[in-house]
Amino acid sequence: MNCDLCKKREAFYRRIHEGIALCSICFKNNIEKKVKSTISKYKMFEPNDHIALALSGGKDSLTLLMILNKLEKRFPHSKLTAITIDEGIKGYRDEAIELAKEYCSSMNIDHFIISFKELFGFELDEIVKIGGDLSPCAYCGVLRRRAIDKAAKIVKSTKIATAHNLDDEAQTILLNLFNGDIAKMARIDPVLKDPNGKFLVRVKPLCEIMEKEIALYAYLKGIKFQSIPCPYVTTSLRNDIRNMLNRLDEKHPGIKYIVYRSAQKIKDSLKTTLKKFELKTCMICGEVTTNEVCKVCTMIKEISK
Amino acid sequence: MNCDLCKKREAFYRRIHEGIALCSICFKNNIEKKVKSTISKYKMFEPNDHIALALSGGKDSLTLLMILNKLEKRFPHSKLTAITIDEGIKGYRDEAIELAKEYCSSMNIDHFIISFKELFGFELDEIVKIGGDLSPCAYCGVLRRRAIDKAAKIVKSTKIATAHNLDDEAQTILLNLFNGDIAKMARIDPVLKDPNGKFLVRVKPLCEIMEKEIALYAYLKGIKFQSIPCPYVTTSLRNDIRNMLNRLDEKHPGIKYIVYRSAQKIKDSLKTTLKKFELKTCMICGEVTTNEVCKVCTMIKEISK
Repeated sequence: MNCDLCKKREAFYRRIHEGIALCSICFKNNIEKKVKSTISKYKMFEPNDHIALALSGGKDSLTLLMILNKLEKRFPHSKLTAITIDEGIKGYRDEAIELAKEYCSSMNIDHFIISFKELFGFELDEIVKIGGDLSPCAYCGVLRRRAIDKAAKIVKSTKIATAHNLDDEAQTILLNLFNGDIAKMARIDPVLKDPNGKFLVRVKPLCEIMEKEIALYAYLKGIKFQSIPCPYVTTSLRNDIRNMLNRLDEKHPGIKYIVYRSAQKIKDSLKTTLKKFELKTCMICGEVTTNEVCKVCTMIKEISK
Repeated sequence: MNCDLCKKREAFYRRIHEGIALCSICFKNNIEKKVKSTISKYKMFEPNDHIALALSGGKDSLTLLMILNKLEKRFPHSKLTAITIDEGIKGYRDEAIELAKEYCSSMNIDHFIISFKELFGFELDEIVKIGGDLSPCAYCGVLRRRAIDKAAKIVKSTKIATAHNLDDEAQTILLNLFNGDIAKMARIDPVLKDPNGKFLVRVKPLCEIMEKEIALYAYLKGIKFQSIPCPYVTTSLRNDIRNMLNRLDEKHPGIKYIVYRSAQKIKDSLKTTLKKFELKTCMICGEVTTNEVCKVCTMIKEISK
């Protein structure tokens, strides 16, 4: 069967929810076009933005690095810097950091690496050993978010780009629904702005690409995959939701897109009616928080005991 | 292990999401109390209501019949009438109708039966044989909803009670999300009022009880179960969602409640922001519709061709 786009090369992938088959060249072009269209649809960047790309070294962030690097070349007043957070997970993070370094150096992209240890005084491995009330993923999530914001400010960027894909977003939507966390449902946004302007704007250029298509793109581009899974990944609710969505998507192709679009409509509605949180300044670090002390400082205090 | 409520009889059922174990007597009382509390929390009934209970003859509607009959006895100015719609599904409906008749007569409850054939000129079996564009469930759903409203008006009731349970509601919420039907998400309501007052108010007194607990209640009460499944039940998206929610609930007990409560909060928000549909009068039957011709008349017209 021939590719539905070029009509001449042999198709190798069928995108069922769009009813089209694609050859490998048209597939790669199509993914890049889709990312470009997501960026312009949501007005993610300005021509003079200094973008800090959160580069974990996984397939998603390496893919985003490749695509943004290509796009950014067309804007002489823009700049792209990769930032990598070393959470301190022995035997896991090292491989990804090496991959990240390798790709940045080959593409001549500035690369800034900073660790949990430097920023918060603890590696994730140490935090897990101390063993607080929360799961490793809960500590890591809160600290990484802050670390990325700090790193992006250190390199003086104007915006943060993360490689969240459609699967991540659809999972988060259902996770929030299943956790009863409606306020978080209002934050599912391709462009997340802090109303107080204290945190940098975060954009998600891959939010409309399915994970499996990013994996395929990365494979076709010869991107090296990280071989070791994170040792702290557990059988969480998110994991159950991931499996469930993948099963549903096999029988009902395109369902992740529909969930995402539904959530966008709900978000707009929630934003106008949800009570605005009164924002305060953290007594310890001075960052924005809804409590007296922010989540990061609460965690650090708990671990330091 | 003893029952956590009476502390004396042996427990036979563990409600995991509440962390309690119950004996059969306390379980039955607890279900009735929960239904009562749902009714009063959402102000479902007035003391002089004439309630039309949509009685299919399945375990849910027979359970609701038993509980409402018990509650209604305390309100001398209220009245309860059972209405049964005979869709015309050979070999399936007959058994349920016999069960419905039997229970109404033993409880001395007025019972009104009316068929699709009488109301619309076609049995569901005939509609399926003619074979329109839609699935049997799609025709049945639209026609049954109208049939219940018509039957309730014929018996001069003031309100309709249906036996939708928590599982039905949680499934519908996800179904709407997975279908991208946000307008329908605004209609997930224990008390559904037609803003134009043309349709009778519908209430769902079992909306906060899990299906498996209704089945258990019905079993303990000796309610006879319908033995034949509907021949038109197919492997629909709703079915996939049902299985998925049941699997998730095993690992994360109480998840259906959380989905339901999340949707209630979203609903309130959607209601205030969604564009109100301009309601019109159906050119054929005079009922309320958002188009020139209502869904029921569109279907009947299509089948009659």
